[in-house]
Amino acid sequence: MPDTMKALILQGDGYATERPEDTALAAMEPFVQLGQLAVPEPGEDQVRVRVALASVNPSDEMFIQGLYGQPRIRGNAAGFEGVGMVVASGGGPVADGLLGRRVAFVAAAGAPGTWSECSIADAALCIPLIDDVRDEDGAGMIVNPLTALAMFDIVKKDGAKAFVLSAGASQLSKLLIGAAAEEDYRPIAIVRRDSQVGPLESLGAAHVLNSEADDFDRQLSAVLREEKPRVFLDAVANQVSASVFTAMGRRARWVIYGKLDTEAPTLLEPGQLIFMMKQIEGFWLVRWMQETAAADKRAAIEAAQSRFASGAWRTDVTAVLSLEEAMTHLPAELAKPNGKVFLKP
Amino acid sequence: MPDTMKALILQGDGYATERPEDTALAAMEPFVQLGQLAVPEPGEDQVRVRVALASVNPSDEMFIQGLYGQPRIRGNAAGFEGVGMVVASGGGPVADGLLGRRVAFVAAAGAPGTWSECSIADAALCIPLIDDVRDEDGAGMIVNPLTALAMFDIVKKDGAKAFVLSAGASQLSKLLIGAAAEEDYRPIAIVRRDSQVGPLESLGAAHVLNSEADDFDRQLSAVLREEKPRVFLDAVANQVSASVFTAMGRRARWVIYGKLDTEAPTLLEPGQLIFMMKQIEGFWLVRWMQETAAADKRAAIEAAQSRFASGAWRTDVTAVLSLEEAMTHLPAELAKPNGKVFLKP
Repeated sequence: MPDTMKALILQGDGYATERPEDTALAAMEPFVQLGQLAVPEPGEDQVRVRVALASVNPSDEMFIQGLYGQPRIRGNAAGFEGVGMVVASGGGPVADGLLGRRVAFVAAAGAPGTWSECSIADAALCIPLIDDVRDEDGAGMIVNPLTALAMFDIVKKDGAKAFVLSAGASQLSKLLIGAAAEEDYRPIAIVRRDSQVGPLESLGAAHVLNSEADDFDRQLSAVLREEKPRVFLDAVANQVSASVFTAMGRRARWVIYGKLDTEAPTLLEPGQLIFMMKQIEGFWLVRWMQETAAADKRAAIEAAQSRFASGAWRTDVTAVLSLEEAMTHLPAELAKPNGKVFLKP
Repeated sequence: MPDTMKALILQGDGYATERPEDTALAAMEPFVQLGQLAVPEPGEDQVRVRVALASVNPSDEMFIQGLYGQPRIRGNAAGFEGVGMVVASGGGPVADGLLGRRVAFVAAAGAPGTWSECSIADAALCIPLIDDVRDEDGAGMIVNPLTALAMFDIVKKDGAKAFVLSAGASQLSKLLIGAAAEEDYRPIAIVRRDSQVGPLESLGAAHVLNSEADDFDRQLSAVLREEKPRVFLDAVANQVSASVFTAMGRRARWVIYGKLDTEAPTLLEPGQLIFMMKQIEGFWLVRWMQETAAADKRAAIEAAQSRFASGAWRTDVTAVLSLEEAMTHLPAELAKPNGKVFLKP
């Protein structure tokens, strides 16, 4: 094992001082650069993972720009999530037991991330993978699948069979639509391209509405009247989102889990919060991980793995890039709709 | 008893079709007119009350304009709340037992309101008054006091001693500040006039901030840092409100209970709902009445009555108007700050 490793290294520190016009990545250099870092040593109950494949999630795009809820550490490797082989243990029975196993993992807080040849993970949060799970599915088996299952749980507990979701063609939404349709829930997906309507209907969406269509408002009203959804799972939080929330009925809950659009939404009818008992809240997987009992987390993780193993869930791959290729090609690959981009360090 | 009675009669039906620039009443005629109505007959478990004094609450102002959460019934008498003598029972032991008693009451749903010589109340929701309670306090003993106590309960359950309230000089805020200060809570009141600072500090506000002051943002930040409030009880829901919510710390709750300003607020940092676990919700006394156990309601009502009887709470009276005077003078009297206006039918 050499002493150093290649990594995409964070250039910014803490949070962005101003909000960009557009959160889509235009270029990598201001935020990450290819360089060498010392190979990290795992602490007790941690492992070092040789990264086979790392995810590029929307949260990564926001994080490297300083727009995510955790501060950047300048000089650290980026990347939240990946899959790889456990090559060293920092000690402790769980960590030792993972040696030589292929695991899905999230990088430990403050440690080098997954956009790197090696990363560090807390042993308790590593998921040993069965052979039936592809690397492409393992690399995206924590952030999106657990977010999808945890938010589907919000829908189930609220009671109504129908629910609304924005960014309907995202990888996360597709997981959610598939899982929900299987249990006879009725996802109402909002998209921005007509070409996304058919595929999402095939996955099990009860309705797919294009927010760019001239008669979107009319279609939305008709669907809301018919389906009476209560929960709106929203990755965008722009003015279209505010309009959807306003159009929803009594006791609607606007659950914001992402801010893909920088537009600040205006609350058109704040009186609805009083008289229609609506409310606005957030969902963040980090909080869910902190607040959820270990057994419930384990159950969700196992449910995700078995869904990928059975083929019920399958990650659509747009591109797999080396770290060198990522520096030049990642923004363009991320701009393509409908699939996921991975890094192969 | 004559067959007809004087009343201020609703001219509009249902809800307003468009939102005005300003919710303050400019004139009465478009919304209520003085006229004669048949004296109403109480149904079973109801009573007829000869109104001694009726409140004019912000909710009345909103309601007659069609801006409140309940639809108007054209031709019905306006007015939610009042005090008066029970002069007839529609039958049932509770209603019969109230005959000849002076009661605080809210008008029964769909029945003629309190801006009228006679009104109808559900017997279960009448509060027999002890002699120590003045008519001026009895007439405002339900809507504002119960709202204040129910919202103070939200603050207590949330945990932090400090909380923020807008429209700090309103009658409701003054009740809330007094009750909270007595239990060593720390109200941070937002007002719009320097002259309101001293009186609210005397009542027990820990801080009083004038949102019209040049250095309001700086003062607010300093106070929020020092006091760490979690709940913001907001009667205004405008852009100042949105800024206050944005400036508050982790797990802040923006509880909207009124919409005194028609400005639609823009959410400056929706990401805070995700990463700082903030949320936005509403409070409505009607919902609280529906969802709260009878014993808890009774306890809150008794607490309100004893606070008025002891002098801990006292209603500041701006004016007492006859129904005739109300038609010409009510908008001007309502425009005066700091006190409450009553009607004497």
